[in-house]
Amino acid sequence: MRMYDLILKKRNGGTLTEDEITYMIDGYTREEIPDYQMAAMMMAIYFVGMNDRETLDLTQAMAASGDRLDLSAIPGIKVDKHSTGGVGDKTSMALGPMVAACGIPVAKMSGRGLGHTGGTIDKLESFPGFTTDLAEEQFIRQVRDIGIAIMGQTADLAPADKKLYALRDVTGTVDNLSLIASSIMSKKLAAGADAIVLDVKTGSGAFMKQEKDAKALAREMVSIGRRAGRAMVAVISDMDQPLGQAVGNALEVKEAISTLRGRGPEDFTELCLTLGSQMLVCGGKSSSPVEAREMLLEAVRSGRALEKLADLAEAQGGRREDVYHPEHLPQASIQEEIPAPASGYIRRILCDEVGMSSLILGGGREKKGDPVDLAVGFQIYKKAGDYVEKGEPLAVMHANDETKAAAARERFLNAYEIGCEQPEKRPLIVDIIKV
Amino acid sequence: MRMYDLILKKRNGGTLTEDEITYMIDGYTREEIPDYQMAAMMMAIYFVGMNDRETLDLTQAMAASGDRLDLSAIPGIKVDKHSTGGVGDKTSMALGPMVAACGIPVAKMSGRGLGHTGGTIDKLESFPGFTTDLAEEQFIRQVRDIGIAIMGQTADLAPADKKLYALRDVTGTVDNLSLIASSIMSKKLAAGADAIVLDVKTGSGAFMKQEKDAKALAREMVSIGRRAGRAMVAVISDMDQPLGQAVGNALEVKEAISTLRGRGPEDFTELCLTLGSQMLVCGGKSSSPVEAREMLLEAVRSGRALEKLADLAEAQGGRREDVYHPEHLPQASIQEEIPAPASGYIRRILCDEVGMSSLILGGGREKKGDPVDLAVGFQIYKKAGDYVEKGEPLAVMHANDETKAAAARERFLNAYEIGCEQPEKRPLIVDIIKV
Repeated sequence: MRMYDLILKKRNGGTLTEDEITYMIDGYTREEIPDYQMAAMMMAIYFVGMNDRETLDLTQAMAASGDRLDLSAIPGIKVDKHSTGGVGDKTSMALGPMVAACGIPVAKMSGRGLGHTGGTIDKLESFPGFTTDLAEEQFIRQVRDIGIAIMGQTADLAPADKKLYALRDVTGTVDNLSLIASSIMSKKLAAGADAIVLDVKTGSGAFMKQEKDAKALAREMVSIGRRAGRAMVAVISDMDQPLGQAVGNALEVKEAISTLRGRGPEDFTELCLTLGSQMLVCGGKSSSPVEAREMLLEAVRSGRALEKLADLAEAQGGRREDVYHPEHLPQASIQEEIPAPASGYIRRILCDEVGMSSLILGGGREKKGDPVDLAVGFQIYKKAGDYVEKGEPLAVMHANDETKAAAARERFLNAYEIGCEQPEKRPLIVDIIKV
Repeated sequence: MRMYDLILKKRNGGTLTEDEITYMIDGYTREEIPDYQMAAMMMAIYFVGMNDRETLDLTQAMAASGDRLDLSAIPGIKVDKHSTGGVGDKTSMALGPMVAACGIPVAKMSGRGLGHTGGTIDKLESFPGFTTDLAEEQFIRQVRDIGIAIMGQTADLAPADKKLYALRDVTGTVDNLSLIASSIMSKKLAAGADAIVLDVKTGSGAFMKQEKDAKALAREMVSIGRRAGRAMVAVISDMDQPLGQAVGNALEVKEAISTLRGRGPEDFTELCLTLGSQMLVCGGKSSSPVEAREMLLEAVRSGRALEKLADLAEAQGGRREDVYHPEHLPQASIQEEIPAPASGYIRRILCDEVGMSSLILGGGREKKGDPVDLAVGFQIYKKAGDYVEKGEPLAVMHANDETKAAAARERFLNAYEIGCEQPEKRPLIVDIIKV
């Protein structure tokens, strides 16, 4: 078999066989197939497309390219959750303890932030002493013991996807549905869960700006997962403005804690309940989302959900009392209100600009390996649809450096569009897709 | 400017500006733009295409990527000839002296053979002592002195094309009309001629198998050349079987000599007269192809054309008497007739198979740098449309090794298709395209 022939076949509108896809991914992972041939193939796929079978084969070949997590030692149905990303998305930190408190084993791998989006691993490190650097054995033992563990991604999970994504990123071949879906799903399949609940974002702050594109991606991923033998649900949720009120690592942890106390922002709480009830149904803990929702609310009301977060913090090197005293988490030295520059309705809040403002404060990283200031960020008071008087605070900025604060304030104000007409309200939960 | 943005622009159906194309080619030549980005761009161009302006800009950027031959010190209109290649194509060796004898300065760069096709440089080395390794100054002086010089291609003529072609060759992005045309024309423009006569082959032995593809390529190249300020003519000629009778280096030189004596094969002579008359008209030596043809025939009849080849041999290190005594050229030790395996009409002769048979004998090279046996090859007696009795010789094989001869004989017979019905005669000159 020669990669050259596979490029020609795809370029001429052909369908690659399972063997051909496996040959291509194995060869690329082992660096026997050069980047330039793979780049030509990716562009050919961009134009010609792949059918469902090819997409599944690509996903499985990438999932098989490195280590696979073996969760079989953990009893019960393991349910994973994946979000396509956004700004202010601290879902894993609240949702994980909620569902774990209801008996779903949570064995979660998470990533760090890059660019305008944050990452769960960085956020969790707001707990002094918290580590996500767990050996696989330790990770699995912890899930067995306390029902929840969150670790950083191991380097060798779907290495083919890592290499291929880096190539697509610089060759203009990212935005193809089959390639996007197989990239996400290869990591999810390698991470070993029995069921996967996807949170596919749509809106200006999402990878998929248009609702129809988000739905198409969701359907593609659900299809891959089902064919690979996993139970699948995709929730389409709004990311046209930051989720909840907090943006910034420790600030988001504090918001997750408030939510686990039943005092979180309405939109964020609703998203957790929607995703969580789907997870409980997938995990066999409830037969209906309505009943499951009640179980989640009870876990919150009883304090068991918050306790689960305390168990998690303690098990991974933090202190359980920090969960009950979030004032112990990193605090910024400067806290400054950002007044509205005009009166009117908040028409929109550009997620990317808010994310970049937080990055300017030091709360994010421009490139891998950059240090992150855990304390900085924004606490947003006014969101899309709210009316604001000129001078009224839109948000409180948390900063540790006057110069950065000045630049971030300006950038943050750019994110707001204030106008006379009240905008139409966008629903938070757009759709739930199961097939 | 970023290559990434240019890939996206082309991928999305856009048109690249002259600046963008220059940036891309300059960056690629200097190795600042990596192969994988260029491979993605080439595949995007394969699907989206380039308009005439982009194709011209690409050609000119590649022509400007290295040295350009400056022929201005040679008086008169310099007319170049380029063939898209085939088997038994010894045209330059007969046509060059013919047109030079009519006063057209011939300053020709040629290449070596690779795979099943031969190269003019190898063929000329059949003259003992002949060298094509000329310095530019010496090359130009020789054209001024005797009206003709043939040199090997300098390494730095259109290096961007060399690098890009090597990449396209392994990424399935060769067969795009704009890319093929710009590759050929970039070298021609850099070679400095005022007028270019193209010999675009069509048929089973040609790069363009179909007549319509050959015509489209011819039109594209004529268009590029005219926009770049050159006088252009393209002759579409048949390459459905080997040209003339000789295949093999010294054998082809002998056939060129016969042709310059007026005793060459009909098809090869006709092609030389057609191309030559177009060159004479382009070069201002005649106002009509009919008159030009008469001038060429007179150059042959008078012996001036053959004398010009003798001048060339002598000027470049060979002996002029070898031109008059071709029996001095390399001779193979084995000369063996290949009898027809059946009676009937020769329906077709596959060029590639004949070329490969010659390669097996040692007359060609599998990879760059391999040595070549100048004496071996085939002298073909029976061509498409001829009737042959079983046992009658199809050709004489010239070999220097019994084992290779056995393998080559078998391969050569594979090239012949003999059947009961006389095939339709294919015209040698299919078309002449000027716009």
